[in-house]
Amino acid sequence: MLPSILVNLAHPIRFFALNDELRETVRLSLPEEHVVFKSPAEEGFSEALGAAGIYCGWIFPPKWIPTASRLKWIHTPAAGADYIDSPALASSGIRVTLSSGYHGIPMAVHAMGMVLAFSRGLLFSRARQSAPGWWRDEMVGQTVDLEGRTAVIVGCGSIGRHVVRRFRELGLRCIGVRRHVPSEQVDGLTWCPADDLEKVLPGAAVVVNLLPFGPATDRYFDDRLFSIMGPGCLFINLGRGKTVEESALIRALDRGNVAWAGLDVLREEPTPDDNPLRFHPRVVITPHSSTFTNRFMSDAMKQFIERVRIFRSGGELPDVLHAGSEGTMTDVDEHRS
Amino acid sequence: MLPSILVNLAHPIRFFALNDELRETVRLSLPEEHVVFKSPAEEGFSEALGAAGIYCGWIFPPKWIPTASRLKWIHTPAAGADYIDSPALASSGIRVTLSSGYHGIPMAVHAMGMVLAFSRGLLFSRARQSAPGWWRDEMVGQTVDLEGRTAVIVGCGSIGRHVVRRFRELGLRCIGVRRHVPSEQVDGLTWCPADDLEKVLPGAAVVVNLLPFGPATDRYFDDRLFSIMGPGCLFINLGRGKTVEESALIRALDRGNVAWAGLDVLREEPTPDDNPLRFHPRVVITPHSSTFTNRFMSDAMKQFIERVRIFRSGGELPDVLHAGSEGTMTDVDEHRS
Repeated sequence: MLPSILVNLAHPIRFFALNDELRETVRLSLPEEHVVFKSPAEEGFSEALGAAGIYCGWIFPPKWIPTASRLKWIHTPAAGADYIDSPALASSGIRVTLSSGYHGIPMAVHAMGMVLAFSRGLLFSRARQSAPGWWRDEMVGQTVDLEGRTAVIVGCGSIGRHVVRRFRELGLRCIGVRRHVPSEQVDGLTWCPADDLEKVLPGAAVVVNLLPFGPATDRYFDDRLFSIMGPGCLFINLGRGKTVEESALIRALDRGNVAWAGLDVLREEPTPDDNPLRFHPRVVITPHSSTFTNRFMSDAMKQFIERVRIFRSGGELPDVLHAGSEGTMTDVDEHRS
Repeated sequence: MLPSILVNLAHPIRFFALNDELRETVRLSLPEEHVVFKSPAEEGFSEALGAAGIYCGWIFPPKWIPTASRLKWIHTPAAGADYIDSPALASSGIRVTLSSGYHGIPMAVHAMGMVLAFSRGLLFSRARQSAPGWWRDEMVGQTVDLEGRTAVIVGCGSIGRHVVRRFRELGLRCIGVRRHVPSEQVDGLTWCPADDLEKVLPGAAVVVNLLPFGPATDRYFDDRLFSIMGPGCLFINLGRGKTVEESALIRALDRGNVAWAGLDVLREEPTPDDNPLRFHPRVVITPHSSTFTNRFMSDAMKQFIERVRIFRSGGELPDVLHAGSEGTMTDVDEHRS
């Protein structure tokens, strides 16, 4: 019998936990596999970990590595490496793969919502409406026509493509920024190498940050970059909070380079109660909820099932973070976010 | 020489006033016409009114009728009759036409912005973010998946079709409600006669009110209709404020039939400083700004120029409110809003 598959997908947020119906789908879709659904809080988790050849979960703490002696492959539904990765995992000899393709579906809608809430003056009005008087005159300056304007998407990978598709519906011209520009043509998208970012930022009505976190992207958006935006730019961060210098963003808001900021991620999450971004009148913070959707886990399990089949047939797995001792190294999408 | 055309399109809101460039466009597009641009505040307005055969403007007060002795046709860039119409105008013998087709472009974007600001928890987060703690758990209940859900568009005419096009991009199934259902097929839209409204309202995730105001629509949305919505329905009013009983809407919000209301129009505009809707935590009011866009007047003048040509060639003008003594009466789109 093949070593079993251990699925550990408990999560306090309903959208990211596996329900009974999806467990049944996974079982029925992989009839030749022995699939165990178990979380660390449940009895027998250690035994299940020791017996597993494949693991699927949000986390894999280094302390589990010695127990997982038969483990060949760890898969996570996350698009980013930061929740699961560790130096111990990298040197463990276990192959580690991330997910891709479906996270961008709700994220692009979230980005579109933020852009429209700003450009149609909705957040401005919500703050203004309870004060006396009529603010129709004030709304003129709060209305931004998006048609024909430019959106710059920094770290434009799989998620970025979903954003581009949505933004095109709004009439925005999209520029996708990547360290290395791909040869692939995407409708309505112009590629721009990261080295030329400073040339395209000044013309942007909207800037969407989808950068992953890493040594090269820590505080990537700093005073220098913010100072060449706008005036009146809409800044959306759906990537990772640590890629933004938060005090520099506040200065940019106060100088007018950035008119409104929509932040789904922050340097620390939960962010401190006294983070000044919480109190800025032209900032909306969502609590890392841009991927919230009822379809998340069904999309995730569909992808996992496909990849189990690839793995069992000896095919090449996509989205490889660590090749493991039996794999060949292929690069993870460099601008994964 | 033909009687002149008087264009009176001064407006305190920049988007609805004619700029120099557009005046030039009108002049160049109608080389055989004598076009006078003048507002009542300017010297010679009465003389211009007396000489005009055609008038284009936002308003036409009854007191102007005796002066306008050569006037055959009044045209307004408004989609609704309420700003320009009067019993005196109806019996004046002057033909009066409204506009149609382009108002829905910004309005549909405005509606989409409201729906997304609600369904992605943006307004909730903006109110929540300055209080201590992290609200990721609370956001689960604030996230509404729109894909596959139903939107009911009440008073679904020309503007409604723009809304339908936008809502389909969000994956919403649209039901268009009209007093008399047209035979025309619209992609992604199911027609429903107004008599059956109570059958479709309970299933709606989103209700958009685009009703025009008139004796038949005064307080159309009352306790009875609101009580069959939801729970958790998103209610958007971009039609006319008087079609909603505002106290009934507040009761519906407090009972939970309506989760969020986005109101671009109110019974009185400006609305009184003490209107409780201003203070309700799940209401966003925009100050009749859903048509705000830089392209408004260029779209309006393009339509006016086309219609001057139709008028001069003896053709039939669309959007006739009053046929006038020389015209034949055709119905105005019943659900104009």
